[in-house]
Amino acid sequence: MRRHPSKQQIKVAADAAIFTVIGGRLQILLIRMKKRPFTGRWALPGGLLGDRDTARSAVCRILEEQAGMTSCYFLEQLAAFDTPARDPLGRVVSIGHFALVPPTDFRLRTTPKYSDVRWWRADRLPPLAYDHKAQAAAALARLRSELGRSNIAWSVLPRAFTLAQAQSVYEAILGRTLDKRNFRKKFLALGLAAPLGRKSSGAHRPAALYRFRSRRAAGSL
Amino acid sequence: MRRHPSKQQIKVAADAAIFTVIGGRLQILLIRMKKRPFTGRWALPGGLLGDRDTARSAVCRILEEQAGMTSCYFLEQLAAFDTPARDPLGRVVSIGHFALVPPTDFRLRTTPKYSDVRWWRADRLPPLAYDHKAQAAAALARLRSELGRSNIAWSVLPRAFTLAQAQSVYEAILGRTLDKRNFRKKFLALGLAAPLGRKSSGAHRPAALYRFRSRRAAGSL
Repeated sequence: MRRHPSKQQIKVAADAAIFTVIGGRLQILLIRMKKRPFTGRWALPGGLLGDRDTARSAVCRILEEQAGMTSCYFLEQLAAFDTPARDPLGRVVSIGHFALVPPTDFRLRTTPKYSDVRWWRADRLPPLAYDHKAQAAAALARLRSELGRSNIAWSVLPRAFTLAQAQSVYEAILGRTLDKRNFRKKFLALGLAAPLGRKSSGAHRPAALYRFRSRRAAGSL
Repeated sequence: MRRHPSKQQIKVAADAAIFTVIGGRLQILLIRMKKRPFTGRWALPGGLLGDRDTARSAVCRILEEQAGMTSCYFLEQLAAFDTPARDPLGRVVSIGHFALVPPTDFRLRTTPKYSDVRWWRADRLPPLAYDHKAQAAAALARLRSELGRSNIAWSVLPRAFTLAQAQSVYEAILGRTLDKRNFRKKFLALGLAAPLGRKSSGAHRPAALYRFRSRRAAGSL
């Protein structure tokens, strides 16, 4: 087989900004690095592609190894990050990914490769390795943008949810409180949720329940 | 300097799906390849990254060389395309880009590297090299999606335009006719355009003119 004649020395990696909502706060998954030059620094999970990997399969494998992830259906590509100096060990283009997931899809445990893995509040991140601060910011911007036009929040809501529950998740992701009446109007106007009935809660008028019409993650290419 | 120990053999390329509107039709820029294994096949402009290139700078350089492009301000990243078999000469990850541009930003001429370069109707594409059919389809989907929430059409409209002109461009990009009243209502509801006055056109009531509030391309990360 004729090969590409180029002497190009660029490697390809994949990273992932994985978000969830715990305790009414948006959280992001970080691992703590052992190897130089980022010893002790926190980073997004990621790594170089193997010969048979696509960027997506690399991220799924790495998330399973590094964070005990049990499913990968939710992952979307974010963008390629290619600033020449982003990795001090040589030229690496990273294909960034992002997802909003239920925290129960992960079984966090420390592996030999990293000294720690945990959820961090997205608004209180420590210094990050590589260009991961920029990747996390781009992923958060994309997540917030998707929120206004897709059902991406389905994974962090129960199958049948009240509008108060939806509002709480939207507030966690947007990082600000929302006006109750405005939220309800706009959320229902998106046409993504259908009414399900009412939830009995004792003496008071029960809260209306909704479900997303589709549970498939939207917003992919 | 310690280097990445990986023996990874993946090269990095960048491609571009460049759209314009000519004669009320959406068009896409294609070059015709000389080199094997795609001799005679049409393709999106693109190529491997040089050592000092970012994906964006590579695309801008290639578009200038291959299609006489005079400006690059409009270019947005689309996605990374990484199907392992997308290039028969070896593993290449391509960072796809897209743009909607005025045709006057190009001076098409045949260069030694390619046997032809021209605009093609986006709904009548010839067979394309590599995975460029999928890249063109993804770029078109993104362009149509941007159209409903950004001012991306500004580059193919005059600075002062009538709603009839805007509708014609939207119809070209969406590939279908739109109801006049609905289009006007939705277009103005986007809040992207501001009224400018009226265009005198003889005996009849002149058509209202609009301009985009911003000429900056939206939708980037």
